Amino acid sequence: MSSFTNHPNHSYASAAPSLPESYRQDQRPYSSSSSSYYGQQPPVPKYGQVSSSSSSSSSSHGQSWFPPGTHPDVIRSFQMVDRDRSGFIDENELQQALSSGYQRFNLRTIRLLMFLFTNPKDSLRIGPSEFAALWSCLGQWRAIFERFDRDRSGKIDAMELRDALYSLGFAIPPSVLQVLISKYDNGSGRRVELNFDSFVECGMIVKGLTEKFKEKDPRYTGSATFTYDTFMTMIIPFLVS
Amino acid sequence: MSSFTNHPNHSYASAAPSLPESYRQDQRPYSSSSSSYYGQQPPVPKYGQVSSSSSSSSSSHGQSWFPPGTHPDVIRSFQMVDRDRSGFIDENELQQALSSGYQRFNLRTIRLLMFLFTNPKDSLRIGPSEFAALWSCLGQWRAIFERFDRDRSGKIDAMELRDALYSLGFAIPPSVLQVLISKYDNGSGRRVELNFDSFVECGMIVKGLTEKFKEKDPRYTGSATFTYDTFMTMIIPFLVS
Repeated sequence: MSSFTNHPNHSYASAAPSLPESYRQDQRPYSSSSSSYYGQQPPVPKYGQVSSSSSSSSSSHGQSWFPPGTHPDVIRSFQMVDRDRSGFIDENELQQALSSGYQRFNLRTIRLLMFLFTNPKDSLRIGPSEFAALWSCLGQWRAIFERFDRDRSGKIDAMELRDALYSLGFAIPPSVLQVLISKYDNGSGRRVELNFDSFVECGMIVKGLTEKFKEKDPRYTGSATFTYDTFMTMIIPFLVS
Repeated sequence: MSSFTNHPNHSYASAAPSLPESYRQDQRPYSSSSSSYYGQQPPVPKYGQVSSSSSSSSSSHGQSWFPPGTHPDVIRSFQMVDRDRSGFIDENELQQALSSGYQRFNLRTIRLLMFLFTNPKDSLRIGPSEFAALWSCLGQWRAIFERFDRDRSGKIDAMELRDALYSLGFAIPPSVLQVLISKYDNGSGRRVELNFDSFVECGMIVKGLTEKFKEKDPRYTGSATFTYDTFMTMIIPFLVS
């Protein structure tokens, strides 16, 4: 986790953002016509390994047991809710299983996790290898959340969310941060703060949409072209019911 | 409503789709490189008048009363829930207000309606003119829903949804229909059927996303280019919390 300690206080609005050298080296220069940039920081450990594209491969579905080295607590949490021993659990069971290690997540967050960590053709249930990947990802996110929740209040504010997402590899522009935060504004006029549940939801939305965008912008130009068909079929699954 | 009676049984997968002449005349030819097409049928009455872009103008927010000619039932439904006479109602009050004319909509559908029919900068409350536009739109959608719910079961299936959306001006490709329908698949293996609530949710998702796409494809080429910033800020508000 040492890569997080020197986290720079860069400005997202700057025309020449102060990004870590490692990031710049791995990315193409941004298009001068675009003020937006995004991407994943190479130092983030194992992040790429738990992406939806890798975890959603059909081979992971064929694998009906946990990967070697899975912590016994993870296996126990899964087995505890998989009462019929089918090797798969549904969204309510996932909510219950994660409660033992983390907390009771909102069903909306659970559905987003199901969508991002399962095979798109079978996103109503999750198997052992996908569950292990999800558990591990949440562990990393929890550590980052706690790092930015400096006063241990269990909540982070907008700027901390921005920095936490940056640590996860996502450099989001201020406009994106603003629409994300506005999702959690209850109109009370108070400063918006996110608990871990909302942080995971936010992060998974950014992660999922960014990965979709990247599929159409493999060279990091900051711009991507979609057909109507692709655009709609790509976005609608995020509007989880 | 006579424009709906000759609704063609066109194929969405056809390379040369059999669309009504009126539709073709108003649209540019589709790009040959794209098999997808979309758009609004000109014959649909008043549809354009209730689009999010027109209803979300700041001027409508300045208007603190109902447009002339608003049906007294609509005004009554609004006033009944606006107990503090502020001239604005929130999502729970909207849910209650619509119940008197239609039905009790799912809060998820209510939030989507709030998002599409209010000023983006103030989407936590809805005023009289926006409420009247929403009510009128739902009336049109209800009529179309009932037209396609031929057996009066209160539900429509995938093909009826496709035809109903077409009547609303949206020619969605089969792939889009499939992801839409899969949102309502509970895994029971039964044929998916949508009640009016889900139909409204589906339709509003298609309407909202299509309008966003069109903003970047004003000449109906079937293809649009987005920056990362635009893509993210455009989509995230649909992921209503």
